[in-house]
Amino acid sequence: MIERTYLQKINGDLWLTEDDRDNLKISYRIRDIIKSGKSDFQDVLILDSYDFGPMLVLDGVVQTTSKDGHIYNEMMAHVPISHHPSPKKVLVIGGGDCGVAREICKHSEIESVHMVEIDELVVRYSRTYLKEVSGGLHDPRVQFIYDDGVKFVSEVPEATYDIVIVDSSDPVGPAVALFELSFYQNIHRVLKKDGLMVCQSQSPVFHPEILRQTYDRIGRLFPITKLYWAAVPTYPGGFWSFTMGTKHYDTMVEIHFDCNTRYVNQKILKSCFDLPVFMEAIIR
Amino acid sequence: MIERTYLQKINGDLWLTEDDRDNLKISYRIRDIIKSGKSDFQDVLILDSYDFGPMLVLDGVVQTTSKDGHIYNEMMAHVPISHHPSPKKVLVIGGGDCGVAREICKHSEIESVHMVEIDELVVRYSRTYLKEVSGGLHDPRVQFIYDDGVKFVSEVPEATYDIVIVDSSDPVGPAVALFELSFYQNIHRVLKKDGLMVCQSQSPVFHPEILRQTYDRIGRLFPITKLYWAAVPTYPGGFWSFTMGTKHYDTMVEIHFDCNTRYVNQKILKSCFDLPVFMEAIIR
Repeated sequence: MIERTYLQKINGDLWLTEDDRDNLKISYRIRDIIKSGKSDFQDVLILDSYDFGPMLVLDGVVQTTSKDGHIYNEMMAHVPISHHPSPKKVLVIGGGDCGVAREICKHSEIESVHMVEIDELVVRYSRTYLKEVSGGLHDPRVQFIYDDGVKFVSEVPEATYDIVIVDSSDPVGPAVALFELSFYQNIHRVLKKDGLMVCQSQSPVFHPEILRQTYDRIGRLFPITKLYWAAVPTYPGGFWSFTMGTKHYDTMVEIHFDCNTRYVNQKILKSCFDLPVFMEAIIR
Repeated sequence: MIERTYLQKINGDLWLTEDDRDNLKISYRIRDIIKSGKSDFQDVLILDSYDFGPMLVLDGVVQTTSKDGHIYNEMMAHVPISHHPSPKKVLVIGGGDCGVAREICKHSEIESVHMVEIDELVVRYSRTYLKEVSGGLHDPRVQFIYDDGVKFVSEVPEATYDIVIVDSSDPVGPAVALFELSFYQNIHRVLKKDGLMVCQSQSPVFHPEILRQTYDRIGRLFPITKLYWAAVPTYPGGFWSFTMGTKHYDTMVEIHFDCNTRYVNQKILKSCFDLPVFMEAIIR
């Protein structure tokens, strides 16, 4: 029996209370525990919440939900793809909920997706019990690799990929390594000479210092660094930032956009780079 | 002594827990109660929170905070003003925290601002104890009128204002009247023949039906109706929507933007009208 302090019955209702922040607690009323288990890495829950539907919860922290997971996943996938005129080979680090890989697969020109996720249980649960996010991902172009992302990119031959997407969790514990300069150096190395990368770079409201550090590190390696943003309801602060490093391509390619998206369209692909004053100030 | 179930000591720390939603609770750790009182209309608190600094709380629900209040206020003020080539007379309904009026006053061409707020205590507390939002608002062009906004616009002569801004709270209790067609009809009447209005139209994530209704009602009265959005961290869902009804002007005027803003700039003034797919679908 796993002890979960973040899951409690109150007046007959089940509530999940995220306890990863000192000064802000968010509690979700839960309809049902769809699936729960413990991997070598973390406590993995698929919970059915009243407001956000089924959601993935790792060590008590909401990672993605049926209601808004597509926003983050679409922004992670379609923005970099729309900057590359012929993307064929894509590497995804993390992204165990399969949402990013699912979005990538909506583009017919993609030939292969290597998805490197350390925790197989997250992938298994998400594909089976969180289909609103994963789409049950079952595409012959996707190769699942259960490995440490940092180790994996250090061993890949150079100039292998067109696009690398880093879909990490917050920079605490093991995920810290996914924000290090040496990791970005290896990503730069495994990208082709016209390749590009993107990573989530945290909330500009709550963690401007991480955004700045990420932007600076990627900016040291890539000739072109671009910051973009989206509003993601279940991420604290609403605002979320993404940093793109690109070796060659700087502007959006006019792609045929029939990707059946719920957030991203041609206009958003462009205007997501229009930064509010306070975000411009962070990277100045 | 006012009984406040939403304010509790837990392990020696003071926490505010918003209890206006059934399925989602947000709790803020509070450093100090700066000021508290009860008006004829509501329980009014200025609380100093750890994550968001001083904030205004009405009947236990956070209305605006020092950390992110400017986003909402800048979007409510500068977007409509940037659509009018010579705005002189502005009416603000609600907006007791004075943040919208403060932003309006940054434009030198504005000659008068009528601010109609039902609750004088909110204005008094905000001007004195929430200067991060109100700026201590003290501008000879602003006339404070403590009255019911619905009654006020019904009595104003026609064609009085260039711009009307409705800064209401959520459509529960007395604020419901600020979302009615008859209210918008009176706003249309008190606007000059090239006038325009804007109102907050709730979260497109949690209350798409209110957004749709607001958009439809304004669309029945004004030849041009435009929807725009911003990410507001402390509003549930992160996303916030604003609906503009305009009698004549349709596009942004190239204004000299030296308004000392923290969110809005020329780019945001334009791209805030680029709607994500799911928001386009709400008003289709």
